[in-house]
Amino acid sequence: MALKLYGLPMSSYTTRVMTCLHEKAVDFEFVPVNLFTCEHKEPPFLAKNPFGLIPVLEDGDLTLFESRAINSYVAHKYKDSGTDLLRLSDIKEAAAVGVWMEVESQQFNPAITPIIYEFFVAPISGKTPDQAIIDASAEKLGKVLDIYEARLSSTKYLAGDSYTLADLHHLPYTFYLMKTPWASLIESRPHVKAWWEDISSRPAFKKVAEGMKFGEE
Amino acid sequence: MALKLYGLPMSSYTTRVMTCLHEKAVDFEFVPVNLFTCEHKEPPFLAKNPFGLIPVLEDGDLTLFESRAINSYVAHKYKDSGTDLLRLSDIKEAAAVGVWMEVESQQFNPAITPIIYEFFVAPISGKTPDQAIIDASAEKLGKVLDIYEARLSSTKYLAGDSYTLADLHHLPYTFYLMKTPWASLIESRPHVKAWWEDISSRPAFKKVAEGMKFGEE
Repeated sequence: MALKLYGLPMSSYTTRVMTCLHEKAVDFEFVPVNLFTCEHKEPPFLAKNPFGLIPVLEDGDLTLFESRAINSYVAHKYKDSGTDLLRLSDIKEAAAVGVWMEVESQQFNPAITPIIYEFFVAPISGKTPDQAIIDASAEKLGKVLDIYEARLSSTKYLAGDSYTLADLHHLPYTFYLMKTPWASLIESRPHVKAWWEDISSRPAFKKVAEGMKFGEE
Repeated sequence: MALKLYGLPMSSYTTRVMTCLHEKAVDFEFVPVNLFTCEHKEPPFLAKNPFGLIPVLEDGDLTLFESRAINSYVAHKYKDSGTDLLRLSDIKEAAAVGVWMEVESQQFNPAITPIIYEFFVAPISGKTPDQAIIDASAEKLGKVLDIYEARLSSTKYLAGDSYTLADLHHLPYTFYLMKTPWASLIESRPHVKAWWEDISSRPAFKKVAEGMKFGEE
């Protein structure tokens, strides 16, 4: 039975999982969730994820949520298929993947999220983007990216010389950031820029990026 | 060569790792980092963690940071020693551990952190705690804990019937929350309260809790 992925093709968290599934060459059935009618806050969806958030992955009778946890599960279960996203054969490399996945989660994500929210989400909720929040977040993100710039001057990817989940998890939000005036945070740092151009041009992500039309008509 | 843990015995992130090391019955050397003289922002420490944050774990020539990544490494490397914190022998149980570790990271942590910060950290920085931030965070944390209450009415621990890293990661911040007026968020939910009493009374954590004197004279 194929995996079932519940989500939305323009959602950053859904596309994070779709990209991983494509990298692992794993077939899946995509089930759209209508966020605009709040389908994700209704009992049938809440039975899958009590937090009422997309995406959800079903693998037979196993139901998983939280995009990073889903990707770790997929990368472990299908470790011999597609791209080696965890480098499990080398405990040190696998440890570095773990560290840089947490860096994305705890350092990069909290800095970039408010920019994406204020720029794309606030306007469709009828709110004016809060420039003070954007400025503070851009400053924070710049400091994180300074550390990435140093790191990526000595290794091709965040966890070492191979593309892994640690890189992949950055794709969706950075893709949307590149459509804002704060794309310069990436473009002004040569190693970060080269890394971004590399990881965003992988076929698994390009296929997913076609559906990432948030903020477009 | 023993593992070396750099940190501070009252720090939530350091004690998260110490608790894991005790659960796994792994010997380690503790190296205190003097945050008050900003030792963590000086080059020798920045060479270990470019983000300038504690804790750091050294295992021979391998240097790791980010407490959750360190714990995953320790729990994988010493999987046959001490408490089984990952349930790797059952892919479904291991997947549930992964999901609920991410729930701690993405749902619980962002809600509880501002309460701990405003209550304990703001006053020692000479700031008045921001009651609006505390109130909004307490409301958010309450909603997360409502979902925990439902979950813990059907399973003893977050990922199932065994104590795992998913529970352990909640210990330090909840320990500090229990010293604030918002302890009622835990105490008013019977299954959450029973879970808290269970996990906080484990010997591995009790040993660590003795050093958690933040906010005391």
